[in-house]
Amino acid sequence: MAVLQLLPPSLCYNLYSSSSSTSTVFFPFHIRRPLRVSTVTTIRALSTNQPITAKEEYPSASSSPRLEGKVTPRSVDFSAWYLDVIASAELADYGPVRGTMVIRPYGYAIWEYVQEYLNVKFKETGHSNMYFPQFIPYSFIEKEASHVEGFSPELAVVTIGGGKELEEKLVVRPTSETIVNHMFTQWIHSHRDLPLLVNQWANVTRWEMRTKPFVRTLEFLWQEGHTAHATAEEAEEEALKMIGVYIKFSYEQAAIPVIAGRKSREETFAGADRTYTIEAMMGDKKALQAGTSHNLGQNFSRAFGTQFADENGERKHVWQTSWAVSTRYVGGIIMTHGDDAGLMLPPNMAPIQIVIVPIWKTDDEKTGVVDAASSIEKMLKEVGFRIKLDDSQQKTPGWKFNFWEMKGVPLRIEVGPRDVKNKTVVVSRRDVPGKKGKEFGISMESAFLESYVRQRLKDIQASLLEKAIKFRDSNIVDVNSYDDLKMAISEGKWARGPWSASDNEERKVKEETGATIRCFPFEQPRGQKTCLMTGNPANEVAIFARSY
Amino acid sequence: MAVLQLLPPSLCYNLYSSSSSTSTVFFPFHIRRPLRVSTVTTIRALSTNQPITAKEEYPSASSSPRLEGKVTPRSVDFSAWYLDVIASAELADYGPVRGTMVIRPYGYAIWEYVQEYLNVKFKETGHSNMYFPQFIPYSFIEKEASHVEGFSPELAVVTIGGGKELEEKLVVRPTSETIVNHMFTQWIHSHRDLPLLVNQWANVTRWEMRTKPFVRTLEFLWQEGHTAHATAEEAEEEALKMIGVYIKFSYEQAAIPVIAGRKSREETFAGADRTYTIEAMMGDKKALQAGTSHNLGQNFSRAFGTQFADENGERKHVWQTSWAVSTRYVGGIIMTHGDDAGLMLPPNMAPIQIVIVPIWKTDDEKTGVVDAASSIEKMLKEVGFRIKLDDSQQKTPGWKFNFWEMKGVPLRIEVGPRDVKNKTVVVSRRDVPGKKGKEFGISMESAFLESYVRQRLKDIQASLLEKAIKFRDSNIVDVNSYDDLKMAISEGKWARGPWSASDNEERKVKEETGATIRCFPFEQPRGQKTCLMTGNPANEVAIFARSY
Repeated sequence: MAVLQLLPPSLCYNLYSSSSSTSTVFFPFHIRRPLRVSTVTTIRALSTNQPITAKEEYPSASSSPRLEGKVTPRSVDFSAWYLDVIASAELADYGPVRGTMVIRPYGYAIWEYVQEYLNVKFKETGHSNMYFPQFIPYSFIEKEASHVEGFSPELAVVTIGGGKELEEKLVVRPTSETIVNHMFTQWIHSHRDLPLLVNQWANVTRWEMRTKPFVRTLEFLWQEGHTAHATAEEAEEEALKMIGVYIKFSYEQAAIPVIAGRKSREETFAGADRTYTIEAMMGDKKALQAGTSHNLGQNFSRAFGTQFADENGERKHVWQTSWAVSTRYVGGIIMTHGDDAGLMLPPNMAPIQIVIVPIWKTDDEKTGVVDAASSIEKMLKEVGFRIKLDDSQQKTPGWKFNFWEMKGVPLRIEVGPRDVKNKTVVVSRRDVPGKKGKEFGISMESAFLESYVRQRLKDIQASLLEKAIKFRDSNIVDVNSYDDLKMAISEGKWARGPWSASDNEERKVKEETGATIRCFPFEQPRGQKTCLMTGNPANEVAIFARSY
Repeated sequence: MAVLQLLPPSLCYNLYSSSSSTSTVFFPFHIRRPLRVSTVTTIRALSTNQPITAKEEYPSASSSPRLEGKVTPRSVDFSAWYLDVIASAELADYGPVRGTMVIRPYGYAIWEYVQEYLNVKFKETGHSNMYFPQFIPYSFIEKEASHVEGFSPELAVVTIGGGKELEEKLVVRPTSETIVNHMFTQWIHSHRDLPLLVNQWANVTRWEMRTKPFVRTLEFLWQEGHTAHATAEEAEEEALKMIGVYIKFSYEQAAIPVIAGRKSREETFAGADRTYTIEAMMGDKKALQAGTSHNLGQNFSRAFGTQFADENGERKHVWQTSWAVSTRYVGGIIMTHGDDAGLMLPPNMAPIQIVIVPIWKTDDEKTGVVDAASSIEKMLKEVGFRIKLDDSQQKTPGWKFNFWEMKGVPLRIEVGPRDVKNKTVVVSRRDVPGKKGKEFGISMESAFLESYVRQRLKDIQASLLEKAIKFRDSNIVDVNSYDDLKMAISEGKWARGPWSASDNEERKVKEETGATIRCFPFEQPRGQKTCLMTGNPANEVAIFARSY
């Protein structure tokens, strides 16, 4: 497995963290994992068997679900649940133009945590932020052949400016490789100008027909990194390094156990030599492409003439990469961790990590309880927790419990009159339902409570990742034949099997099952394999799944 | 002066910091300040006497000045100097579409300091970030009468999406009041939903005919705050609070002594009842509107039906504000502080606060000098300074001095062989030219050097502000007649005088002198005054100036 050797350790998050040895657990291809599917998940699996074209998941604003804090159980209808959670938790709303989305403060705050983390990592790895204009002359898009083929059906085009018909139509950027190369030709002269490592945080527009909040919208927010290098090796190293940043972010911050790997030729970015991807399994077992990193080779530098003089004065085309994560990632967080009660946020990404709910009956009780709650709030805020005290009068404690659970707040502190007397609080975990997740008699004493809460948030962060890993692993089926693959896909699962067949056969799988190759994972079993489709020798396993 | 009483203290930065009493210095209307105009500044003043329509200050990419580190002296040609600085310091470049700009890493880093500071202040004052789509149905723009009048000549319009002619044309946002109100109608129901306080960081598009990097571009970056309130008073308080944030930022971070005040009716934002502004005097004495805060009254809420039920269940229209600072501000920093040698950055906004230039002749010397420089760099970086060690071999120390001066780095540390022996360094201030700005024999000892450098950066920050205040105050002329006003403007200065004349007379001043009312400043002289134009009583003085 040559690929595996090339990778930095950060790319090799163990797919099977529960086992001590990767190879032994990985390779019982003949052993099918037992189906651990409850009645509830069976319903879900059936519902995802609907032909994937049947659903328009982006109702107009007037029909948007507004359930006043209640959501359709995830187990009943995953798609309705998703839209309900977005509406009820006030994550986003529908814009007036079809397929556009307004990101509301609670949803935007999650995106800000994505930004904060990645922005620091990009700078640590030597990249500078900058900004390219969003209007691109139409002729630029046409310069790279496969790029125009990939993007021209999705373009928004400005034809009028300042009241006049424009001489050249302008494309609203769907991605910036073309304009980046136009500028790079002016900035890159010699090998001393390389590597050139930049990133921008920006909006992009793709005229999608089937849209869904966060997951696929006409306009979305993202970061796009663009780099130029003197050698093919450096570009490859960069593309892998940045997918590594995304992997680390996914595991450590978002608690999403992505599977990283290389895209098939069919699924490679329009204009890239190789695309690396992180693929996440959503709660309905569909795959979400959560981030990509492209080795662009010299495709754009040849189209635009982006050249440098090497040490010997010889003119050469630069080697390039680009890589992106978008607001789609927020959709990935919702669909990975949420449950019947609503959103469930990993503490590292939660705008509110702790909610305090004071409980009282009489006015006398109220004073003591709210005072205690306020001083706990103050103390925990001062040491850096993101905390909210809900002391509103209009709603009952029970209503508040449900509301903040629906909003996905990881930890709840309850303070009642008896707690005040005993100088204790009750702490409830969002991720462990009912009494099991509740601890009584936790001391209010500052130092103790602070370290208790810190540890619980860590536990929740770890536990969400562990749960997601288990869910993922129990829904990946190792297959050795096309029949096995079809069976796995029809059960809504991911199928993993050796693949060396043609692009045509890959398209046939898509037509017949709705599944595509999500990636050839970086983590590969050892040894020679047999292609599940053709019986020919195969070097790698691929993962097939239906996807968003 | 009722206006003055309303203002929070932060709005009352003293215009005359050098004087102990505002009123005495302020009101010698009869005393014309002596002209302290050198030959050099006379040339500048003459050059700004050109009819303001004559200049296209946005050459095409191919003719952009590239002087390899050299810039036209500011005193010779301010406009050429500005474009040279932007090119040579690599702040920005021209995009492929006329009037668009690529913000390069060094320029973008300055914008990031604007963002970091304001973002924190917005959150401290209770605002949440969010994101509205940039495509606005054309019909929205038409709903508020003066808004459409103001913006329709400047719109970029998308007419094609996904290869098809769109049924309704989409405007690329020039500003977001319309779409914000469309959404607010869905989120605001009761007085409990108010105040609603949001902000977005976004790009906006205005199809400007005469453009100039940073100052006026087809697309620019900004933040736009949008708020809704239950009462007129709260909206007014908010509009003033946010102009107060901009004032504080300008004085304390950017070292730009803006004059804040209210716009005249003629200059008020299209759709606002009142516009507050911060006006900055550039090095050529032209005014730059550097930020605005609008009290929108009920203009948009009436047009869009943005209503709430008050405590008695009565439906009322909300009162609104919006406020913005854009990448134009970066242009303001360049044109406030720069000098003949290039850019000069206030330490609080400098991507590089300190550059270390090691000086050696022999290889032996080099080792010692570079080692010492490296450990100084490491030490100062660790305690939080933004520092760059320029130990490149290709360039001489003299070249490096000029280069980093042109880039506006506030402080330079020089380390030569004798310094290494004496354990000292030489420190040069960017803002004090020649020997006067140079201190020799500064100890390398960590604690000493750290506190020395910290103090020097503070000195520079304060000194830049002081210099800008002096420049501003020596170029504002108090006038009591239209002749005085015309004289002041023809000298390139700002004219300040009592004004209660009509909009027509204001337009006449503009036609005849090229100057507009920049604002009625918050700081007003006491007592009754006589309008400089009509001789009628006047309550306020206005400031007239030519502007960007």
